Order: sequence, then structure tokens, then C-alpha cells
Amino acid sequence: MTSTLDQLRRLSPILEPGQAGFEAYLNDRSVWTEPAAPLAVALPESTAQVSAVVAWCAEHGLPVIPRGAGSGVSGGATARAGSVVVSVERMDQILEIDQAKRQVRVQPGLINADLRRVVEPMGLFYPPDPASLAESSIGGNIATNAGGLFCLKYGVTRDYVISLEVVIGTGEVLRLRREVSKDVMGYDLASLVVGSEGTLGIVTEATLRLIPLPSDPVATVMGRFDAMEPVGRAIEGLFQAGLDPIALEFVDPIFMDAVARYNQTAPTAALDGPADPDSSVGPDGSDGPGRAGAVRTSVLIAQIAMTWPLDDPANQGRKTETVFRQAGARTVEWSASEAEADRLMADRRLCFTALSAEGPTVSEDVSVPRTELGRLLVAIERVADRHGLVIGTMGHAGDGNLHPCIPIPPGPDGDARAQAAFEDIMRQAILLGGSVTGEHGVGLLKAEAMRQALGPTQMALHRAIKAAFDPAGILNPGKMLA
Amino acid sequence: MTSTLDQLRRLSPILEPGQAGFEAYLNDRSVWTEPAAPLAVALPESTAQVSAVVAWCAEHGLPVIPRGAGSGVSGGATARAGSVVVSVERMDQILEIDQAKRQVRVQPGLINADLRRVVEPMGLFYPPDPASLAESSIGGNIATNAGGLFCLKYGVTRDYVISLEVVIGTGEVLRLRREVSKDVMGYDLASLVVGSEGTLGIVTEATLRLIPLPSDPVATVMGRFDAMEPVGRAIEGLFQAGLDPIALEFVDPIFMDAVARYNQTAPTAALDGPADPDSSVGPDGSDGPGRAGAVRTSVLIAQIAMTWPLDDPANQGRKTETVFRQAGARTVEWSASEAEADRLMADRRLCFTALSAEGPTVSEDVSVPRTELGRLLVAIERVADRHGLVIGTMGHAGDGNLHPCIPIPPGPDGDARAQAAFEDIMRQAILLGGSVTGEHGVGLLKAEAMRQALGPTQMALHRAIKAAFDPAGILNPGKMLA
Repeated sequence: MTSTLDQLRRLSPILEPGQAGFEAYLNDRSVWTEPAAPLAVALPESTAQVSAVVAWCAEHGLPVIPRGAGSGVSGGATARAGSVVVSVERMDQILEIDQAKRQVRVQPGLINADLRRVVEPMGLFYPPDPASLAESSIGGNIATNAGGLFCLKYGVTRDYVISLEVVIGTGEVLRLRREVSKDVMGYDLASLVVGSEGTLGIVTEATLRLIPLPSDPVATVMGRFDAMEPVGRAIEGLFQAGLDPIALEFVDPIFMDAVARYNQTAPTAALDGPADPDSSVGPDGSDGPGRAGAVRTSVLIAQIAMTWPLDDPANQGRKTETVFRQAGARTVEWSASEAEADRLMADRRLCFTALSAEGPTVSEDVSVPRTELGRLLVAIERVADRHGLVIGTMGHAGDGNLHPCIPIPPGPDGDARAQAAFEDIMRQAILLGGSVTGEHGVGLLKAEAMRQALGPTQMALHRAIKAAFDPAGILNPGKMLA
Repeated sequence: MTSTLDQLRRLSPILEPGQAGFEAYLNDRSVWTEPAAPLAVALPESTAQVSAVVAWCAEHGLPVIPRGAGSGVSGGATARAGSVVVSVERMDQILEIDQAKRQVRVQPGLINADLRRVVEPMGLFYPPDPASLAESSIGGNIATNAGGLFCLKYGVTRDYVISLEVVIGTGEVLRLRREVSKDVMGYDLASLVVGSEGTLGIVTEATLRLIPLPSDPVATVMGRFDAMEPVGRAIEGLFQAGLDPIALEFVDPIFMDAVARYNQTAPTAALDGPADPDSSVGPDGSDGPGRAGAVRTSVLIAQIAMTWPLDDPANQGRKTETVFRQAGARTVEWSASEAEADRLMADRRLCFTALSAEGPTVSEDVSVPRTELGRLLVAIERVADRHGLVIGTMGHAGDGNLHPCIPIPPGPDGDARAQAAFEDIMRQAILLGGSVTGEHGVGLLKAEAMRQALGPTQMALHRAIKAAFDPAGILNPGKMLA
């Protein structure tokens, strides 16, 4: 064992079992995954080091667990016994910003928010904005094809990848796609690597497309709804009216309350301002979340590019208000200022943090055609009833991508009941023509559900592609492909 | 043979050798390709018929030549001896338009322009706009990942594919991707099929994304330039200034003259209005195209979304004018009306038709980083000089995607000289970090250049993917993968 580690140590900086910090690399934030101790954690500082480590692992038949910032929730970065975790966190540089081409070349360990912070003063914008953007890495974003709040308008990570440098399972370094806007030379291998969760290769460099920083004024319109059906009608109505929101986010009463409670103990103001008198739950949470009977208020937040003049009925914001009212909203409010709008969206991003601060919570991530969203919301309510659980739901309503979140109940069967509901929700999404994961990824938690959803022929194509990129089968084995 | 054709006839309507119309299915519009007579042309009318024909061909080891409208220029649809051409032209229906979801489900034989015509009165828009849009099919557009004039702003065909139904090389029918906005369940097999030129499967149905019909007023600003260097500076300058044109098209003097000559014999007005007094070529073409010495005028046409007020120096159109002037434009004009702007763009689309009306002409289709565009323009001039040829260049300057077009000179060595220049241009594009094809596809003409550009490892990945989708190796053999 010592000689094995010595060999590895010559290829890349490493952390060994027992060294300070080692434990932090064993898992991501997934529930229900059980990491086993890897042989070592490699912390390469260059493409050459990544390549050397992977080639060495291929030679010795050792599993490689690629790792970005470890903020995933599906078990994509869960370590297994005898593996080598390859964390790209030290490769976190912006290598080149080309303002004229509007593109940036970065290393995979760069944090999403750091990229945004650097390019925004140049009038440039990197749109993919997963809720984890303050801590998740570009490499992880690429591995999961990360989405976010604004992909309704701007698209997902795959839409911003111009070119990739990738270390495949043999240790070979490939450059996928030229740095050009249009290239139809061969199959789109780059799109294949995006979203492959480390099973086809480790991205060691990415050239990303930027867009001009949006400068149009934005209106934020918030509708409150007493039931799920009018929410579905409002979403439907927006698109039928030809409106094109930048973001369209949904928060249910359970999350509304959780954020209000969280903000009472934190310096920012609540999503809901003062506690909603109609809320079913007091600020002390004494009634427990989600009890039926009382009036429960859901919220749809639409961000809309403004057109002028503001009081024109043709104005996009006015039209949104009309659609919300006609769908049956109890109240419709416009944010009075940009700061208030930013706070609304910040609170929306806080939802999962707030609910999981109260106890272990698992987040689902299903996606349906957006016309099926009303039916999905009703189906989630029924799943909660069926399993006797509270399920809070929020998410990207405009994309049909929801995050029903299940606080794991106490008691010996708590995990089993939550897990049954987790799987039930995926079944409902498939029945509505949807996907078991819209942006979180498959990892360990959804590999079996994916296998069932895609069927044997598509799974065989997946395995053949995997075998071509990774003939030794060492890259993130057991993830995604069950 | 008769019994073989009888078997095929039971699976799908067919055309046999000798039947009227048969010859029209033997090739696309490529130069330098030599089709051989197929066994038959299948004209299936359903997915089931496509599936049955492909399965039958797999069983008998017969090559399948998938065919859209046959408007390609790279030999992707060139027939070979003993093959079965599968034309999807009879599968040309719009199956479903969902205005609320903003998506449309279509058959592959539908003509691009017919789709646009149907959805535009609903306030919806299908952006990919290859120059061939009046005659090319959606299936062919998907097979080549077609671009166009407005993909600078709106992206290419791959960006509009939500979901595909595909018959792979075994005859199996797959549905790739759910009809949802966000789906990270598995590898992106749909993106792999887009642009695969019929080597992985035959698309039998596609669900496409539409966008709201753009309604912003557009300004069209035209700059005339006396040399290539200022053209490069102007393009660079536009993006450096943070401008975001909808389209940015380039036309060189050879095409300017060809369009002027063409329009003199046609009812529409010329791109250039009255013959340009500075042009090197008279309307009668007596001087021959592209002679050196005289002042030669190139044109950049920028279409810009308007901002108000019009005389504000911050207005995008005014800024464009300033950039063009500072780069060294001889003149800058704004189109006076939308009709004039439409005519300008229509004339731009006419370029290849006009030049090829004067004799056999081959169109290149190289793509470089747009900051390399000035260098590419100069390199193309040198290629013309080196081979003693006239080369007219036009194309999508904003995308770095140009179409240098070579009129094939008369004489026994005309083809060989033009072909040498064709290959020389691809080498120049690769040297500048570009691709040998931006939108036309690889087909037969560029398969060897692609093999050299991608290298052995990426070619091995291509072949493994091909073998997974098409284990019998019957789908468009010899195309793309040399």
C-alpha cells in the first residue's frame, strides 16, 4: 500500500487517509449515500497531473471519483473503497478573458460566482445560475449540466460551453470542439461530456460563452394563490399570452413559512415581509408545517423585461398582472424597487437552506412539460398524503422543473418513508411525460430510476459510449449507469 | 433481384431504377461526387415503414442512404451502388402545434419555410434559417445541424431540438429526450444525432422549440469597405463595443457584382442598387470577376435591434455606424425602410445562386474564431492568388463562418485546381483554430479533412459511437467518417 501511495504521490499532490481534511472529500451533500474510504485524494494542479493520475489508475484498475466542489445532492461524488478521488479544486484559475470574442477560458475548479464577479465589471455575463453558485464549481456545473433560476430565459450550462479539454478514461487529453461559434465537423462529443457526471472524462479546461450583461430594466411581479390549480392556470396563461419571462419561480406555503422562520433568526427580511396572517404556521413553527384546513398561500414570482410606458396595458408587467388575476390570484404585487426584487429572488434561493436548517431534508428535482405543472403540483400533494409526509415544493415553474423537498420524519422508518415518497414523485413525473432529474443529476440516487425510464436500448447505447471513453471502466463506476 | 425488390415493396412505397423520377434521388447538389445507382429509392410514409426498411436492410447488409430534400452540398446524400435511398419527403406533416408550450412536433420531410409560414401568424418563430430554407427539410436541417443568417443571435438547429424520434441502424425506434425544458437524465443522445448526417439514424419525428416572433424594430446598417483589413477591424470593433447584432453578414466585391448582374436579368433590384461606379466589373461582366487593381468594395450588413431615441449616440445603430467609420469604412448607410432592409438581406441570400448561375461553382464553408476573420479573409485572397483562381467570399461574419466560393475554371485541369484551393482553404481555417465546416456538413467532400483535423483518438470515439447506433454499419457508409 505504501509503495502504491508513493507512486501516486509522484504524479500529483495527494491527501492520505488520516491526514487532516481527508474526510471532507468522501461525499457530496446527498442523503442516503454511504461513502467508503478511498485509497487517496488527488489534488492535481494541472491537466498533466490529472492525465497522469487517471492513466495510472487505468493501469492499476483503480476507480476514479471525479470531484468538483462537492455541492451535488445525488451522490455523483460519493467515494468508494480503494478508489482515488480526483478533486480539481486547485485548478481554479481564469486563464483568459477575451472581451471581443465574449468568451472565457477557465479551469474546472473555478467557483461559478467568482467567474460572474470577474466578468460583470466588463459588461459581460455568465448566465447559468444554480442555487449553489456561490460554492459550486464550473467543472461540477459542466458535469451535471447545471441549470438555475434564469435558464428559462438564458438556457443551461450546455448552451454556454464552446470547447472543452477533457481527460478520458485512458488518461488521454482531448480538445473537444474548436473555439468557434459554428462547427459541424463530426459528432457533438462536447455535448456528450456535458452532463455525463464524470463517467466519460474529467474536464480540465473549458471555454465558455458569455453574453452582454443584460441592462434592460426588469419588473418583478408576485402573485399569491390559495390553491394549486390557479397556479397552473397562471403559468399556462403567461405563455399563452406570448409573455417571455426571464424567470418564473414557484414557492409553496411550506417554504414560505420556512423562509419566514429562517429570516427571523437571520439579518435579512422575510420573503413574505411580516408573517402572513393567513399562514397556517406560526413563526414558532408550533403547528408544524403543512397542516391542511387553513388558507395556504403559494407564490409565483415572475421577472419580466420591461417595456414602456409602465401604465400601458401592453406593458409586459401589466399583462403578467392581468394573467395572474384572471387565473385566480388572491393578490398581485409589483416589487417597488430593484432592491426589493433582488431580496425576493434571494429569499427564493434561500428556500432549501431554510427548510433543511430545521432538520434533514431531501430535495427532489423532477421536470415535466410546463403544461403539466398544475397536474404535477396536485400529484405531489397526493404523494405527501399517501406517505403521510410533509412535502414542500418550490422551483423553476417556467421550466416545469420543481424541487419537492421532503423533511425526513423522525423515527426508525423515517428514511424509508421519505425514500418511498422520493421514488413515488419520480414515477409521477415520468407518467406526466417528464424526467427524473431536471438539473441535479442522476448520481447514485436516481440511477435505477433512469434505467427504468430510458429502457434497455438507450441504456445499451449509454454503456457503449461509456466503454469508448473509458475502456477500463474506472471513471465514477456505479454512478448514473445502474 | 426481382424477389428482393418485391420484399422491399411490401415494406414501403419505392421507386425502381428506370422509373420516372428515380434519377432525382441519386445525389444532392455537391460537386465532385459520383453517385452510383441504388437498388431502389424507398419513399416511406410512416415511422413504421422507415423502421421496417432499415431493419430489412440491416438483415440483408444493404447500405441505407438517408435523404431529406437533397439540397446539401457536401455529398451527404450521394447514393452508392446496391444501396437503398430512404427519402423522407412524403413524411412532411406538422403533427402538433402547442402555442402554450411554444413547441411544434413535425415530420422530417417538412420544408423549413413551410414551418415558418404556419407558425408566424400565431406570433411564433422558428429561427434556424439556412439559405436553403425555401427548399431544405427539417430532417436535413437536423442531420446537418443547419445554421443560417440569424444564428448569430438565435443559435443553430441543435439549440431548437427538444426531442427526437429516431430509427437507428437496427431498425429500432428510439425517443431521445423528454419534451421538457430541462433534462439531465443520461447522456445527450439527441445532441449526438443532430449533425450526424444520417450515420447514426434517420430522424422520423422532431419536437422543436419556437420563440415569440421578434417584434423589436430592427435597423440595418451597411458599411462599404475598400479592403479586407478594415472589415476585420469593423467586426472586431462591434463586439468590443458590446454591440449584439442580430445578423452580421459579409459580401465581397465578386459577389456584389454577381448579384448586380443576376438582378439585371431578374425582377428584384440589386444589392447595390445602381451599378457601383467603383466596381471593378461592369454589368456585362466583360472584365471577368475579381481582377486586381481597381477599387473593390466589400460590404458588411449589420442588423441591430433598435433602442430609442434614434439620434441618441447610445443607440445601437448609431454605435454601429461609429464603429464602421472608425474601422475605415468608405461609406456607411442606414436602410431607409424595412422593405429596403428585407431586400438587402434577400440579395445577400441570393449570392450563391447569382454566382453559380454563371457557371459551376463550389462553395466552401469554413469557420474560425471571429477575431481571426480578418486573417481568414486575407488568407483566402492568398489562396486565390496561389492557385490562379477567382474566389468570391460571403458569409456570416459575426459567427466567423464564411463561404468562399470558387467558380470552377474551364479547361481539363479546372476541377483539380478548384479542388486544391478548396482543400487549401480548409487548411487555412484549421491553422487559424477553426473548423472545416461551419454548417454545410462533412459528407464525402470533407471526410478526409475532418479525419486529419480530429486525430485518431476522437475518430476512434466517433467509430465506436457509430458502431453502437449502427452495428451492421449500413447507415450512410463512407459519409463523414473516412
